[in-house]
Amino acid sequence: MLNDAFFQVLREAGDLMLSYENLSIHWKDGHANFVTEADEAVQSFLQERLHALLPSAAFLGEEGGKTILTDELTIIVDPIDGTTNYYRNRCASAISVGITAEKKPVAGMVLDPYRQRIYHAEKGCGAYCNDAPIHVSDFPMERALIEFGSSPYRTELNALTGLSVAALLPRTADLRRSGSAALDLCNVACGISEGLFEWDLQPWDHCAASVIVEEAGGRCGCITGGDAVYDHSIPFVAGNAICFEPLRELLNGLWITHHP
Amino acid sequence: MLNDAFFQVLREAGDLMLSYENLSIHWKDGHANFVTEADEAVQSFLQERLHALLPSAAFLGEEGGKTILTDELTIIVDPIDGTTNYYRNRCASAISVGITAEKKPVAGMVLDPYRQRIYHAEKGCGAYCNDAPIHVSDFPMERALIEFGSSPYRTELNALTGLSVAALLPRTADLRRSGSAALDLCNVACGISEGLFEWDLQPWDHCAASVIVEEAGGRCGCITGGDAVYDHSIPFVAGNAICFEPLRELLNGLWITHHP
Repeated sequence: MLNDAFFQVLREAGDLMLSYENLSIHWKDGHANFVTEADEAVQSFLQERLHALLPSAAFLGEEGGKTILTDELTIIVDPIDGTTNYYRNRCASAISVGITAEKKPVAGMVLDPYRQRIYHAEKGCGAYCNDAPIHVSDFPMERALIEFGSSPYRTELNALTGLSVAALLPRTADLRRSGSAALDLCNVACGISEGLFEWDLQPWDHCAASVIVEEAGGRCGCITGGDAVYDHSIPFVAGNAICFEPLRELLNGLWITHHP
Repeated sequence: MLNDAFFQVLREAGDLMLSYENLSIHWKDGHANFVTEADEAVQSFLQERLHALLPSAAFLGEEGGKTILTDELTIIVDPIDGTTNYYRNRCASAISVGITAEKKPVAGMVLDPYRQRIYHAEKGCGAYCNDAPIHVSDFPMERALIEFGSSPYRTELNALTGLSVAALLPRTADLRRSGSAALDLCNVACGISEGLFEWDLQPWDHCAASVIVEEAGGRCGCITGGDAVYDHSIPFVAGNAICFEPLRELLNGLWITHHP
């Protein structure tokens, strides 16, 4: 399904994203969620250009005008994943484009425009960074680097996030917090970290990268059990094949005893 | 004091660091502390070449052969800050060279070899990234990004680190955890984050970057009060001029009620 035309659209979207120098910032509903003109422009660009490539597909984007996920082919877009990093010029943001069929992701592309990398995968066809195949690591928990998100709009989850940090530090090599779930998941897929968790993660944050992680040999799911879903936010966890289950179990144990 | 000869030594040390492709890894005393051949080679290189530039200075490095800090001019080196990132090919490590006189830092250089940036400062002369002056931000706590370290060798501090995360999330924009305190502090100096804390940080991790933060308009100190010291590890905090005191107070409050 994915071909050079898709990658070209993604690269042009990346150029558009980086072309916004003077950001016009306004605040969305929650804490620390900056919406920029660039965010909206990149989404519009992707909606138009991807529609031309996949005219039968529905479109679901982070920025406004959300549609309900159906069994139809659907493009799920996060125009700028890591908006705070983008606004702060931290060079750690991504464009995320997932494609679902029957409500499950079947293809995903994540562009890191700062390093000119496209991570991509189609179900059953392996995962790649540009042209190179990528694979998860075989590190166990005690040597694992675990990335985490902080669900900044959900302050009732802050205590649980802090407890997760305290519980994971002695059981792993260390934790990382970059501010872009899509790039964190690509790190897991490339084998430079072993897992990611966030207590409330939206479908557009993980839809594309989930395919990439799974095709790289890793696993994704809901912390409280079962597969990830793509029609609402969930407590999300991903890991390499060795760390996924112990990481999910440890976090689920914290959920059972400490959820708000 | 710092001149092109120092910067040239630092750049060559960076080339040496990046030239090690196949790392020979062995474990040091603690959890997750990888020491590589590269770490030792970079320190030896810096010791020899910096001695030629400052023959009267004592030398104190992270890797072995530590000397006691005296009032004499002393070069304090972390050959690779962010060793885990280095070992995992995460491109987020630095070389840190600080110079103390009368046990206080008077000059500092931090090289990010992946982005070819040298952050540097001398007391009273301002802070720079390569040739460009740098300044801390004027963001208050509620808009602040706070970087943190996890003191991975001190498991008794894990709970306090988790509590700090839980306490800071609702009071700031968000947290970041990169794995390199020296680069985190340079981010504060550049104004792309507002502070850093770590409950147990060694002098070689913050000596060079402390001068850079202070010359960029920020502040550094001990969480439990007073100035930072450079002869042993301390609970360390840095911030822009607005965030430093509220960040220090919040963390000190956690220390008083929850220290191990």
